[in-house]
Formats: sequence, structure tokens, C-alpha cells
Amino acid sequence: MALTMLPDGAWSVTAKQVVEYAVRPVPNVLNGTFEIPGPDSAECDLLGRTPAGSMRRLVVVDREVMRLYGRQVRGFLDRHGIEYRLLVLPGGEATKTMRTVLRVCRELDDFGIARRSEPVIVFGGGVLNDVVGMAASIYRRGIERIVYGTTLVALVDATVGAKTASDHNGFKNRLGTYRPARLVIADRSFLATQERRRLSDGLAEILKLGIVCDKSLFELLEDYGGLVLDERFQAATPTADAAATQIIEDGIKVMLTELHENLWEGELARATYFGHTWSPKVEMEALRRSRSPLAWRRRRWLLHGEAVALDMLLSVSIACSRGLISESELDRIVAVVRQLDLPTWDPLLDEPAILAAGLEDSVRHRDGEQLAPLPESIGSVTYANDITPAEVTAAVDWMRSLRKSDNRETRHG
Amino acid sequence: MALTMLPDGAWSVTAKQVVEYAVRPVPNVLNGTFEIPGPDSAECDLLGRTPAGSMRRLVVVDREVMRLYGRQVRGFLDRHGIEYRLLVLPGGEATKTMRTVLRVCRELDDFGIARRSEPVIVFGGGVLNDVVGMAASIYRRGIERIVYGTTLVALVDATVGAKTASDHNGFKNRLGTYRPARLVIADRSFLATQERRRLSDGLAEILKLGIVCDKSLFELLEDYGGLVLDERFQAATPTADAAATQIIEDGIKVMLTELHENLWEGELARATYFGHTWSPKVEMEALRRSRSPLAWRRRRWLLHGEAVALDMLLSVSIACSRGLISESELDRIVAVVRQLDLPTWDPLLDEPAILAAGLEDSVRHRDGEQLAPLPESIGSVTYANDITPAEVTAAVDWMRSLRKSDNRETRHG
Repeated sequence: MALTMLPDGAWSVTAKQVVEYAVRPVPNVLNGTFEIPGPDSAECDLLGRTPAGSMRRLVVVDREVMRLYGRQVRGFLDRHGIEYRLLVLPGGEATKTMRTVLRVCRELDDFGIARRSEPVIVFGGGVLNDVVGMAASIYRRGIERIVYGTTLVALVDATVGAKTASDHNGFKNRLGTYRPARLVIADRSFLATQERRRLSDGLAEILKLGIVCDKSLFELLEDYGGLVLDERFQAATPTADAAATQIIEDGIKVMLTELHENLWEGELARATYFGHTWSPKVEMEALRRSRSPLAWRRRRWLLHGEAVALDMLLSVSIACSRGLISESELDRIVAVVRQLDLPTWDPLLDEPAILAAGLEDSVRHRDGEQLAPLPESIGSVTYANDITPAEVTAAVDWMRSLRKSDNRETRHG
Repeated sequence: MALTMLPDGAWSVTAKQVVEYAVRPVPNVLNGTFEIPGPDSAECDLLGRTPAGSMRRLVVVDREVMRLYGRQVRGFLDRHGIEYRLLVLPGGEATKTMRTVLRVCRELDDFGIARRSEPVIVFGGGVLNDVVGMAASIYRRGIERIVYGTTLVALVDATVGAKTASDHNGFKNRLGTYRPARLVIADRSFLATQERRRLSDGLAEILKLGIVCDKSLFELLEDYGGLVLDERFQAATPTADAAATQIIEDGIKVMLTELHENLWEGELARATYFGHTWSPKVEMEALRRSRSPLAWRRRRWLLHGEAVALDMLLSVSIACSRGLISESELDRIVAVVRQLDLPTWDPLLDEPAILAAGLEDSVRHRDGEQLAPLPESIGSVTYANDITPAEVTAAVDWMRSLRKSDNRETRHG
């Protein structure tokens, strides 16, 4: 911290903020019983309990999690002496609005939360983490939160970094803050009940890390991606069990390795933007049309990871044309995308204006440059600033050609 | 930055953020002409210009500032080559809503702002700084802003720290973030056109710092507070000019000294909370009643500094009863409050439920403790955690007794 007077009479302020958080794998957490840590423990309890501290908690639970695990969640909270109020919210992109953020803030008022010692507890997926996280980060300029990730996207992506978010004005994640959860509990037993399409959704974010950050993670998905998807990341066989553990743990590790040096995005060349150059616009456009009042325009929305998969294919096609990856690497990537049951095509790709608008907004987000991450052989990244509309068109043509050899994407179309 | 695996298999992340900003006094800024700094200058230009950078700016201007200085503001922007869009918003507490925050975010979308290199420019008072600051801090998780403070409150209080804010759900500043402006321009020439009541409003925040942080600042107000108020902080006489400069510069210095070590409020025992224990509730209640549909309930609102003055008197009365300050110090404080044309009474003080609710909410804000700042002789601070309702009642009785010897407060009643 420093306060200095400059030669021209101006005051210059320099201040440092240190942020600490932890991501903790805990198997079958809802069946566990945990002691309050001793007074000299530096650890944060799973429910933010301290020896003499408040036990009051506002607990936000995803509606689907409540339906499937409601009794267990209540039992878990009761067993640990928590005086709680439950707030049940639906998951899904349609919930990710400032309306939800402000509703959570009003619930915090009603509950009368203390500013530092009564963390909000979240049981939910990526959307609930983002939107409750945003509420918690602006309420009284920030209160603590503890998140139990209940979806694959939450486990390996949304809860692991510092970003909170709300969609706004038709743009994905247009508003948000940087504020990690104090503690993230990663328990893959929740995945046993997750819809297969949502598991593929999460696998897309792991695949992203494999393609541009870590070749061994890519190969893990190449070898076991289809298996863990079929087994829903559970311990059906020892092989599936070990693969599921490793895919999740490596996914978290690679993600944290990428993020922790750049938690506030001081650097805008970010490998984790891979698959996120055109996709925010594509995802939001699909969502908008799914709600169209004109029946003939209505369509099914795209999950986040599905839009990311389309963007990744677009990007790797460009990377291949530029000679950054080989044809055989391209084929391997397509094979993994298919194995993970992710789409290789969507009719929105037929609309150049959507892709152009997507890139244009990403350029604004990256302060005037494309900074589009492309793999430079599988497992490492480079950034392009000169992608032309013709390259995008060629990449879309290539994706269209994939379609003829793969009809599965119609499920998502 | 560190990423470590704990013995239990959890990942622990530690990250540091460095924040830098400057507060620069510039006399008669709108009449000045400034060069773009050279490429190796570390300085931030008054309009965020760099040799090869974008000149596009969204400029948010207070409606009253636009009325009084509109031509000058346009001339200033034109003269410096800025390609601007103006957004004119009213000031005042009623503007400090999430509705305004979200409107500013939509305007940023319409304007198509680049994320880092096109800072939002604000010409306005405390409310506009807070509410545009909040929009800028959540838009794409944070864009830069440069603020020209046009009111005394803005110059010495609102723009100097890191807080941004919106009222919500009937509570003052219930939502907000920590994000200082990249650069604050402090130009007291704007005060020449400020309403006298608004100057008193700003003087209340300076008086706060004098009473609990800096005795010489208190004495400066004691000697010259009435004069600078009468002269509107302008250079009418050499004495008034010197006093005005010193009061503003010392106010900024003391404020920054208090804040810079605790920019994110890690420490909740804060001298700058003095006058802010009961007042947020009193201020919001006055605002609410000013809009009452029942004519017989309607009243004039309290300015922020007026509510702060009432809270300071309540606090110093308790401090005097506890022997922390002497009767003569108490008298000196009352004399300065009157000299600055601040109220010593408001009918809301007659409602114990309002004061009780105000204290209760401050306790939540201070994580379970009162931490009520009280002067310990003029110029230094102590914190009380055991203020009783009886002490509050006695303090209100004392304030009521002041009323008999001072009828000026009826202007504010």
C-alpha cells in the first residue's frame, strides 16, 4: 500500500488485495459428518462454521437438485447444526439475469445476513454459481460464499475461477465481477443423476483445456471420454472410476493453472477463451429463438458447452488451414467431439451475420484485438489477430461437410 | 500468486491484485488544453488518451452540470479530439438505483465500448460517481472510468475512495463494488455554481474527518468553514482562497490516508464510519417519506451530509456522556455544525424505532458488532460496541434541547 504525492500535486494510491480460496474434492459429501475445526485451524469448514461463530445460513439450492437431493441436503444441514433458510431457484441460462441477482439480494436483506461470518451456501450448477456469486459479490460490496458444484460444468469450470456473471441486454455474461467462492466442494457423486446432455456440456470445457493447454488431458478424453459419459462419472468399473477421477481432477488442475496467475484478466490473451470467440453470440441467439413468439422460428436452445464445441471446431479448422495443426490432429479432435456426444453442426452457422457479430463483440471484449486462441499442435496455444471472413466461411463449409458423415447433431439442432 | 495442493487433496489458490489510481487537482480544467502524454509517460491523461489509442468516449454528465457548463464541456471534449457520445443523467439520491446502473450498461452496449482503452468519463457529483462507477465495474467485469467531481461531496468523499454503489430494496448503498476511478480530477471552480445547501452537505464529510481523524482539519473548519461556505470555495479574497484550497486538499489527504490501507474494508473498525451508524436509515427514511402518496406525511428529504451531521451529533453526545470528549469540545463541535449550516435536529429523531433499525443494520454491516466510531478528544477515534438504547435516548434529548437555542434546522425539517 502506498500513498504518494506526485510532482504536480496529485495523490497517487497503490493498494494490494490478496484473495484466497480452495477447491476441495469430497466424495459423497451429503452423507458425511464433519467436525467444526479447532480455533487455531486456518481451514475453512465445509459450511463456514467456526467454534464460536454464527450458524445462520441462507442456502440457495437448484430446483432440480432439491427434487433429487432435497431430503439429503436438509439432513446434511441439520446434522451440522445449521440454522438455515432455503431459497430454491431454477438452473439454466434463462435464470442468469439481473432479475435473479436482485431477487437474491432482497432475500439476503430478508434473512438479515451478517456481512462476513455467514457465507451464502450454494448447491447448484454453473448458472446458479454465477448468478448467486454476482449477488454475493455486490451485496454490501461482497459477502462470502461456499459452493457445492452439482454439475460437471460447475465442477470443472464455473466454480473454479473468480468470475461471477449475469446475462444482460441479450449478451451472455455481459455483467459480472471477479469474486471466487471462499470454498468450492467438488463431489462427483452428484453427476450420477445428471442428464447425459448436461454431462457432454461439461466435457466440452474439459476438452477445451485438453486441446489448447494439456495434451495428456486431451488423450485422457480420447481414451475414456465416451466411457465416463456412459458411466456418468460413477464407479461402475475400476477403470471408469479411475478415469472419471483423473479427468475431473486434471480438469480442475489445468483450469486453476491457467487462471490463478490471471485471476482478474489483466492479460487478455487467455487460452481459456478457446471456444469462446464466436460461441457467446451463437448461444444467446439460440436462446432468444427458443423463446420466439413465432412458432416457425422456434428451436431448441444450445447448452453452453454445445456452443463452445461448435466454436472449437470452427477454430481448429482455421488452425488446420493455417498449418498450426495437422489433418490427423484435426480428425482426432472431431472424433473426440463426437465421442463426447457434442454437436458438430448447428443451423445458426449458416448465418454469417451471427458469426460476424460474435467476433466483433469478442474484439471489444479483448480491447480491440481478436486474440482468438488456436491450438498450435494439440496441447498448446497461439493467438490469431487476423482471422478473415473468408477463413470463417471456409471453416463453416468444412463443418457442413462433417454433417454428411454424422447425423447425431440433429438432436441438438 | 500461488497454487498449492493441500494434504487433503484440495487445491489452494492465493492471488494478488494491485490497484492504482490518482486524484489530481486541476484548477479551471474546462478552460485548459492538455497535450497527449508521450509514449513513455506512465501518467494517465485527463481523458485517458494515449498516442495511438482510441479517442471514443462515452461521457456521462449530470443534468445540472450540463445546464450550467454544457457548452464548456463540449468545447473541452472537442478541443481534445474526443469522439464522444453524451449521456445526461439527473443527480440526487433518487437516481442511485439499479435501474440507472442497468441503463448505463445498455448505453455502453449501444456505444460499443472497448473493454480497456475507452474509459467512461463522468462529470458529476457523488451519486453519479457511485452509480456510473457501479455500472463500469460490472460491465464486462470492469471497464475504466475517469471522474470530474463537480460537487464538494464528490471532490472530498465519493470519488476519492474505491466504493461504487446503488441503493436497493429501501437500503442506502446496499449494493456496490470496490473499484476506484483510474483518475479523479478535482477542480473547485465547479463549486462556484453549487447550491449553498449542497456545499454544507460536502462540508459535513470534511467535518467528520476533522472530528475523528485530524484535529487541525477540524480547527481549519472552525476558523474558516463559514467563510468558505459564504464564498463558495472561490478566490473572493486571498484568505478565503487559501482556506478553500487547504480545506479541500487536507480533506482529500486525510480521506486517502484513512482509506488507502483498507481499500477493500478488510478491517471493519473504520474511522470513516463516523456519522454513518444511524444515518443511512435516517436518510433513506426521509427520502421515502418525501415521496409518500399521503400528503400529510410528505416532507423534504435530507441530503447525505445532513443525515451524517445528525448522526455525528448523536455520537458526540454519547462520547461526551462517556467522558471521551469534554463539554467544551462538544460545544465547539456544535458551533461548527451550525457554522456550516448543517441541521442539529430532524423530526425523525423522535422515532426510536428508526434509530434502532439503523443501528441494527449497521451491526449486520459490521459483521455482528456495533463498532460505532466515537471521538476520543477531537481528532482521534475509538470504537464502541456497547451503546445502549438509553444512551441513544439521552443523546436525542440533548439534541432536542439544542433546538431551543437554534431555529435554523427548521429549514431542513
